[in-house]
Amino acid sequence: MEVYEKVPKGFQFYGTHVGIKKKRKDFGLIVADKVCHAAAVFTKNTFCGECIPIGKDHVKNTELQAVVVTSGIANVATGKIGRENEYKILEKLANKLTIEKENILPSSTGVIGPQLPIERIENFLDAEPIVLKENYEDFAQAILTTDNRIKVRSLKVGEATILGIVKGSGMIEPNMATMLSYILTDAKVEKQEIYPMLKIAVDQSFNTISIDTDTSTSDTVAFLASGHHEVKKTELQEALNQICKGLALDVVKDAEGATKTMFVTVKNAESKEQAKNAGKSIINSPLVKTALFGHDPNWGRIAMALGKTEGLIFDQNKVEIYYGQYPIFSTNNEEKQNINKIAEYIEQNEDIYLTVDLHQGTESFEVIGCDLSYEYVKINSDYST
Amino acid sequence: MEVYEKVPKGFQFYGTHVGIKKKRKDFGLIVADKVCHAAAVFTKNTFCGECIPIGKDHVKNTELQAVVVTSGIANVATGKIGRENEYKILEKLANKLTIEKENILPSSTGVIGPQLPIERIENFLDAEPIVLKENYEDFAQAILTTDNRIKVRSLKVGEATILGIVKGSGMIEPNMATMLSYILTDAKVEKQEIYPMLKIAVDQSFNTISIDTDTSTSDTVAFLASGHHEVKKTELQEALNQICKGLALDVVKDAEGATKTMFVTVKNAESKEQAKNAGKSIINSPLVKTALFGHDPNWGRIAMALGKTEGLIFDQNKVEIYYGQYPIFSTNNEEKQNINKIAEYIEQNEDIYLTVDLHQGTESFEVIGCDLSYEYVKINSDYST
Repeated sequence: MEVYEKVPKGFQFYGTHVGIKKKRKDFGLIVADKVCHAAAVFTKNTFCGECIPIGKDHVKNTELQAVVVTSGIANVATGKIGRENEYKILEKLANKLTIEKENILPSSTGVIGPQLPIERIENFLDAEPIVLKENYEDFAQAILTTDNRIKVRSLKVGEATILGIVKGSGMIEPNMATMLSYILTDAKVEKQEIYPMLKIAVDQSFNTISIDTDTSTSDTVAFLASGHHEVKKTELQEALNQICKGLALDVVKDAEGATKTMFVTVKNAESKEQAKNAGKSIINSPLVKTALFGHDPNWGRIAMALGKTEGLIFDQNKVEIYYGQYPIFSTNNEEKQNINKIAEYIEQNEDIYLTVDLHQGTESFEVIGCDLSYEYVKINSDYST
Repeated sequence: MEVYEKVPKGFQFYGTHVGIKKKRKDFGLIVADKVCHAAAVFTKNTFCGECIPIGKDHVKNTELQAVVVTSGIANVATGKIGRENEYKILEKLANKLTIEKENILPSSTGVIGPQLPIERIENFLDAEPIVLKENYEDFAQAILTTDNRIKVRSLKVGEATILGIVKGSGMIEPNMATMLSYILTDAKVEKQEIYPMLKIAVDQSFNTISIDTDTSTSDTVAFLASGHHEVKKTELQEALNQICKGLALDVVKDAEGATKTMFVTVKNAESKEQAKNAGKSIINSPLVKTALFGHDPNWGRIAMALGKTEGLIFDQNKVEIYYGQYPIFSTNNEEKQNINKIAEYIEQNEDIYLTVDLHQGTESFEVIGCDLSYEYVKINSDYST
C-alpha cells in the first residue's frame, strides 16, 4: 500500500453555497456512476437528526449511489417538517441526477433546532446546474462547520484506490458536534461483506477516540464500493482500517482547543472491553485532561480514573503506569526519580503516550484523546443563540 | 425542626497542625465519650486509599467511638508501608485516648502517591497533649484541602441534635478530590437501623451531585449516634436527609471555579434510575457545562445529553424542556419566543433550574451540578508536582 492522490474510479464530487451558512460552502454531493455496494454506521444518540432514520432505511439493502450533505443546520429536533424537508431535497436531487431517491444517503450538521431554509435550497436546485467534478476539494469544504481544515486520506490497494473524507472537531458550530465520514473505493466488495468490513474498521478507529464524551446527534460513517477492481479482501480490510484510523486521528488532531494528543494503551487486561473502558475512563477524565494541558505528570489522576472504571478487574499491587518509556508507578509505589523526566517529556511532545499495564490478563486496547484547555471552554461557552 | 447551633451530647473535637501541610491544620479528631452505633459509606473507586479498607473493617460491627482525619496527603497508592503507617497512627491514638483501635475510623485526603510523614506524626502524638473541645471549628478546619470554607449544618430533632460536617470542592490539592462527611447525633439509633438510615439519606443527597464526573479514591460519609435521646425514627430520618442534602449542596456551591449551580429535574421517566441517569448525563456534559458558564440557552446540548443516556426510553415528540418556568422545547419544536427571556434568566440567577419532562412514566429525580469555567481549567492544570 502507498499513499495515492487519485480518487477511486466511478465517483464524482460537488460542493457549493446554497444559503444555509452566510457565505461558506454548505451543500455537498458525492455521486457514483452506478449503484454501489454500501454500508454505514450511525450515531447511537437516540435524540438523533432527521437524516439518521432516512439514512438507515436507504442503506438497509446495502446499496447507495450518492451522498448529500447540508451543513450549518443539523436538522435535529425539527419534527415532521424537518423530515419532510429532507425528503424534498432527496426528491429534487433524484430527479436532477436521475438516480433513485432510495439510493441517496443524506447527512446534516450544524445548529440544533432551526428548520433548514428549504425554499432557498429548492430554488437553488431548480435554477442551478450541478457540475460534478473528479476533484473532492469542494465537497470536503462543503461539509465543514467549525473544523480548521479539510481532512482527507487515501491509499492504493492493488489496482484499486480507497479514499476517505471526514469532518469533525469536537464541537461544530458552537452548538453541536457532528462527525461525518465518507469512504469510497473502486474495489469490488460483496454485499454481505461490506457492513462487517466497515464495522471492523470503525470499531478500531472512530470508536476509540473521544474529544469531550458528548455523542453527537448526527454522526455518520459511510463506505461505498463502486466495484471496478478485484482486490484481496484482507488487503482491502487492512487499507480500510488504516484509512479509518488515520481519519479518526485527524479528527482528534483538529479537536477544539486541544494542544496535545494523548494515546492511552491499557495492556494485559482480562478482556478487550475492560481495557477499552479503562482507557476511555482515563481520556475522558476532566482531571486527567486538565493535567495534560498543564504539562503536569499527575499520575494520581490516572490511578483515580482507572479505579472508577466500572467492571475493571485489577490488583493495585501489579499495576504499572508509564509516560512514554518512563515508569511512574509500579509495585504500589511512586517512581519519584522519573517525575522531572516525565514533566520534560510532556512539555516537549505534542503526542503523549501513556501505558497502563494491569498484569491481569492478555488483552490490550488503545484509545486516543486530547487535553482540556481554556480555548475549549472559550469555544463552547461563547454565546451562540 | 429548627437550625440549632449546639453540638450533640457526647462528642468532642480536636484539630491541629502536625506537619503534613506546611502551616495549616492537618490533623483532626472526633471523639465520643462512649462507643456509638455507627455506619459509613465509602468511595466505589477500586484504586482506593489505605484508610478505606481499614474503615470498612472497623465499622463492620456498627460501632465506632472516634474519627481521625489527616489532610495534605491522601495515603493512596502507597502500598504496605501506607497501610502500616495508618495502623501506627491508630495505635498511638487508641493508647492516648484509651479507646479500642477497632473503634476508630481513619480518613485521609490530599495528594496521591507520597507516604505520610509518619515519624513527625508519631513524635507529635508522643509529645503533645490532646485537648478535646466541644467546639467543632478546629476539626472542620483540619480536614480541609483546597476548600474555600468550612461546611457545617445542624438541626434539632425533639431533644436530640444532629450535626454534619463536610469537606470537598471537586478537586482538592491540585491532585485528587475527596469528599469527607461526618454526621453526629445524640439521638438513639438501633444497630440494625443505622446503615439503612444513612444509605437512604446519602442516595438522595451526596449521590445526586457531580462536579466533574471524577470519583475520588477516599470519599467517606460516616454517621455516629451517641444514644442520649429517644426520638421518632421518621423525624430523625427526615432531619438526616435534610442535613445530607444541605451538606451536598454546600459541596457543589464550593465547586472549583464554578459560577452557577444547576438543578436538573427529569420528570415522568419510566424509572427513577432512568431519570437519574438522564439527569447525570446532562450535568456531566462538558458542552452543557460550558454553555451554562457562557450564559447560553443552548438547549440543543440538553437534547444531545438526553439522547446519549444509555437505556433511557423516551419519545422525542413528547419531551418538554424548561429553563426555570420557560419552555424552550415541546412537541418536537423550539419555542423560539422564549430564547431572550431564558438568556436573561441564566444571566441574572446563580441557581439555574432545568426541567426535562419525558411524559413517558411517573418517576422523577433531581440532580445537582455546576458550570465548567476557565477557573476550573486553571485550578486543575496548574503544575502540582
